[in-house]
Amino acid sequence: MGVQVAVIGSGREHEQRAEEVGRLLAERGCTVVTGGLGGVMAAAARGAKSVGGTTIGILPGERRADANEWIDHAVVTGIGHARNLAVAASGDAVIAVGGSWGTLAEIGFAMRLGRRVVVLDRDVEGLKRAATPAEAVERALADLD
Amino acid sequence: MGVQVAVIGSGREHEQRAEEVGRLLAERGCTVVTGGLGGVMAAAARGAKSVGGTTIGILPGERRADANEWIDHAVVTGIGHARNLAVAASGDAVIAVGGSWGTLAEIGFAMRLGRRVVVLDRDVEGLKRAATPAEAVERALADLD
Amino acid sequence: MGVQVAVIGSGREHEQRAEEVGRLLAERGCTVVTGGLGGVMAAAARGAKSVGGTTIGILPGERRADANEWIDHAVVTGIGHARNLAVAASGDAVIAVGGSWGTLAEIGFAMRLGRRVVVLDRDVEGLKRAATPAEAVERALADLD
Amino acid sequence: MGVQVAVIGSGREHEQRAEEVGRLLAERGCTVVTGGLGGVMAAAARGAKSVGGTTIGILPGERRADANEWIDHAVVTGIGHARNLAVAASGDAVIAVGGSWGTLAEIGFAMRLGRRVVVLDRDVEGLKRAATPAEAVERALADLD
Repeated sequence: MGVQVAVIGSGREHEQRAEEVGRLLAERGCTVVTGGLGGVMAAAARGAKSVGGTTIGILPGERRADANEWIDHAVVTGIGHARNLAVAASGDAVIAVGGSWGTLAEIGFAMRLGRRVVVLDRDVEGLKRAATPAEAVERALADLD
Repeated sequence: MGVQVAVIGSGREHEQRAEEVGRLLAERGCTVVTGGLGGVMAAAARGAKSVGGTTIGILPGERRADANEWIDHAVVTGIGHARNLAVAASGDAVIAVGGSWGTLAEIGFAMRLGRRVVVLDRDVEGLKRAATPAEAVERALADLD
Repeated sequence: MGVQVAVIGSGREHEQRAEEVGRLLAERGCTVVTGGLGGVMAAAARGAKSVGGTTIGILPGERRADANEWIDHAVVTGIGHARNLAVAASGDAVIAVGGSWGTLAEIGFAMRLGRRVVVLDRDVEGLKRAATPAEAVERALADLD
Repeated sequence: MGVQVAVIGSGREHEQRAEEVGRLLAERGCTVVTGGLGGVMAAAARGAKSVGGTTIGILPGERRADANEWIDHAVVTGIGHARNLAVAASGDAVIAVGGSWGTLAEIGFAMRLGRRVVVLDRDVEGLKRAATPAEAVERALADLD
């Protein structure tokens, strides 16, 4: 298996940067893992697919059809917001782009499980903010691949 | 059903205040919901039982025996850290006393689900910190009971 | 903590017997755990409350208001059908009254976790069917309380 | 996205047939979804990889390293046996090869969610048993791809 990086977050104003994160990860050969729905999740997957990358969507509901069109492999969990744990846990590293309370839950889980977490376009106490998508990807992958 | 309040958090230095929170909630007739294990979780349940309150422990593992001795009713979820969602969701309000990343995940879920969240002995961006256990309980229950 | 017994199942024709199971369990001092919704779940809780017993409902959704009116303590899991694991795991023994595929999932989990499972009004390969609610309760509690 | 089929089950004596199921599914262009661990799960993934197929493992624990070596994409759920729901739900169809109580839980969930379920090397009331891996795959995919 290659390196998997989870991209999480939300907020329309963050989608362009999430797309760049997804593209950069795919260019580095990483599989991009997201929550599989719209917004930042779709943007990251779209970025990865724009350069031929591979994407996994971990869905909260019970139907594969909920996945956005850039998802290669959909995991249908049926466990609602608890799927945030699976998203966070499935990344060798996690990049948060913007995001609100659901993203905070994912960051909390990722840190609890000892995953490397990089934040972009938001601040979380105890985490160092990346200035650009390139820096976020660089820090997420340092020593991993 | 009466009012249920979830008490979450961790950190030895916060246990005394968590115990006071549990006691005050029980004196107000609330059922105290926790994650059912040790530390702040046990302290809150102990406080509630010290005045004859009722306690529920929502456990991450697969065995009832994991529950601390102040738990009246143990729910054995078997879903690990994902039980944090159930703890947060089962409170009409949530009081966080101290705590680290796992607590942050619970706060994120509680806010995502629209629960009222009061923080004590810690800061979370966007939430107003209570100064004392009494204030935390007062704000948690305002307009609820 | 006293003995907790999970009552699972579905089917309108099984509700009367489920109510009797709930009543008998409460008379024996057991807390009755169910999935918290209607049908057999509500019947078992109603039976327990008819003799002053205690009931816990482990709900699949995100709202306490989904619980039936005979639930004393509602656990709101937010994890959909995966809450079946928690229902099965939270019983020191599990009694299945009728039921369809969801009940089969709970029986599978309960057996996987080593819980004692008694079936009433249905057959499951490898399990001995109880003839009456009284026999089901007797076998569920043998050596437990 | 292409068709995804979940292969579930357990029992050393069923591994050869599970491997054949995995191989036949991959030859038909399906992605093979499993629980990601050993035994029947590993056999099905090995069969798929033997002909260049794609495999997804949905793990119960918190570490990617738990996945067997034939898994291309590991989803780390952290939710223990509750990940059985995700395995069942992620298949457009589900093929059970042998298996014990955990498999029964997955079959229960798959039927509850309306997935097509085919059983091989075991009987489940209400389901028609396939005689061979080829028949199991044929029936799983009928009208799907």
